[in-house]
Amino acid sequence: MENIITLAHGSGGSATLALIDNVFKKYFKNDILSAGDDSAKLDIGNSRNIVFTTDSFVVTPIFFKGGNIGKLAVCGTVNDLATSGATPLYLSCGFIIEEGFSFEELEKIVESMAVTAEECGVKIVTGDTKVVQKGAVDKIFINTSGIGILPEGVDISGRNAKTGDKIIVSGTIGDHGSCILLERENMGFQAEIKSDCAPLAGMVQDMLRVTRQLHVLRDPTRGGVATTLNEIAAQSNVTVQIYEEKLPVKREVQGVCELLGMDPLYMANEGKLLIFVPGDKAGDVLEVLKKNDYGKDAAIIGEVINESEAKVVLKALSGGTRIIKLLAGDQLPRIC
Amino acid sequence: MENIITLAHGSGGSATLALIDNVFKKYFKNDILSAGDDSAKLDIGNSRNIVFTTDSFVVTPIFFKGGNIGKLAVCGTVNDLATSGATPLYLSCGFIIEEGFSFEELEKIVESMAVTAEECGVKIVTGDTKVVQKGAVDKIFINTSGIGILPEGVDISGRNAKTGDKIIVSGTIGDHGSCILLERENMGFQAEIKSDCAPLAGMVQDMLRVTRQLHVLRDPTRGGVATTLNEIAAQSNVTVQIYEEKLPVKREVQGVCELLGMDPLYMANEGKLLIFVPGDKAGDVLEVLKKNDYGKDAAIIGEVINESEAKVVLKALSGGTRIIKLLAGDQLPRIC
Repeated sequence: MENIITLAHGSGGSATLALIDNVFKKYFKNDILSAGDDSAKLDIGNSRNIVFTTDSFVVTPIFFKGGNIGKLAVCGTVNDLATSGATPLYLSCGFIIEEGFSFEELEKIVESMAVTAEECGVKIVTGDTKVVQKGAVDKIFINTSGIGILPEGVDISGRNAKTGDKIIVSGTIGDHGSCILLERENMGFQAEIKSDCAPLAGMVQDMLRVTRQLHVLRDPTRGGVATTLNEIAAQSNVTVQIYEEKLPVKREVQGVCELLGMDPLYMANEGKLLIFVPGDKAGDVLEVLKKNDYGKDAAIIGEVINESEAKVVLKALSGGTRIIKLLAGDQLPRIC
Repeated sequence: MENIITLAHGSGGSATLALIDNVFKKYFKNDILSAGDDSAKLDIGNSRNIVFTTDSFVVTPIFFKGGNIGKLAVCGTVNDLATSGATPLYLSCGFIIEEGFSFEELEKIVESMAVTAEECGVKIVTGDTKVVQKGAVDKIFINTSGIGILPEGVDISGRNAKTGDKIIVSGTIGDHGSCILLERENMGFQAEIKSDCAPLAGMVQDMLRVTRQLHVLRDPTRGGVATTLNEIAAQSNVTVQIYEEKLPVKREVQGVCELLGMDPLYMANEGKLLIFVPGDKAGDVLEVLKKNDYGKDAAIIGEVINESEAKVVLKALSGGTRIIKLLAGDQLPRIC
């Protein structure tokens, strides 16, 4: 292990996983943390169905097309709860603000947190504010932690992928990453790419009304669809096959990625779900997704082809296949 | 209201309260947040006794006598849960790390979080790591959020102070603030002042075994005992009287404060409780505190003298009285 933290350790890819294994899991050993999902399932008193998650947001720029750091902070944590199948209920928020930050911008951020929380039916119930001197933080960072409740009989986890599962993505991929890249680099492109930043708890509830047999749900944020599929393949010890021709990618996103040598499969999403569901339920799930505002472009992109080797295989447009690895290094720091 | 955020807005004093009222409470309106205690009381499913809190830690230096930012991050959130009377159960942790930070220091921090969590019987069950480029954060910031469970029949809140309550402080005041001040200013003092940073949940459980009639518990962190007493006086609309001669202050802390023109009453504590308890229970509570490792210097420092005017009055050694206000401005930024 290197002796310093690098940006790659925050990428969500292989270096992040190594950091988690070699430092955090080494000291914070317990069954709940070891489960490795985006939210922890807890027993509290008589309740065995409470989920808990946390996320810090350091995105730059703090305002971008389709959202801002505040909206992102609510969506990110709501979505981590939702991917367990839970109904999100309560959020905390911790602000770390740089001295000299404007009240006007703070109010805009807080207002969009309130609007997004309202949309998801979650309450922001506790908070903390720290202010640090100029230069000790870049503008504003926000942590949100969230609590939700799991409906009876729902067991969704990265460990549950099974041979025969179809893999659905709930819409176009790479929108958030491409948006941030363009905003940041100020490259003079005319491309109008908006972040997909959105709260997905309602969409999860829609799917659960159609079937309780959702095996895996995950939001492909840092590291993109490629990294998230690798995490699931590893947790479930399965081979995942996806088809390049099936991947929904906006023309503008494809264009930006080609120009800059990026791959939409590794670009962050902030309003998309990956769904693993038994083949005979995939049609019903797809139908309900397409009726949701955030799921119009949903598509079946692949399947689980066996349960013996943890890997992700892409059938390319060209007809060949290639192994898709976890993100290595860091494609774009401070994406969320 | 000014148009920029200043260090005073993070002081825990009057500017922080104004920020909370004018921005956060304006948008995040709900009964739970409005209660104004350090942790939120939640209904989840069949459970009406779950508490939830969050805190971000930005202390500098990150290692200090008696602790480090990791130990502080566990103690701070455990203590915010404990001051509701809850048994802390689960913590999340969110790390924001500067590129180039050393693994060795990170491991020391994580290890002391694990040791402190073990001491309190809490599990760290979910986490998040962000890495930002050099200069975008000062070394490392940590958010911890926590969940605890309230025993039946316990109702502890800043709103519950009553005429006749005795006010107990669980030990010497100003230790953490003085320690950080000395570490930071490198003033060449020989004073060996250690932070009091400690998890207090066990001490709260000890008190609850003696009486369920604890009215108010609060840990006087940012803004110190003076600010916390003012918050309680305002929440309960009572007059609080304290006696200068009764305040336990270490000789070294008193010395440093005198030299630097600081007041121990406004210096942060990270391992102390303020306890409001009916007069006839105060002796029993004091006794049990003194048996606890973290409560040996506990003392009765005052009482609630009436329920009509929200203020804090100090009877000075000189015999005179003066009004003690909330901290205004910022005595010492990044104390926690």
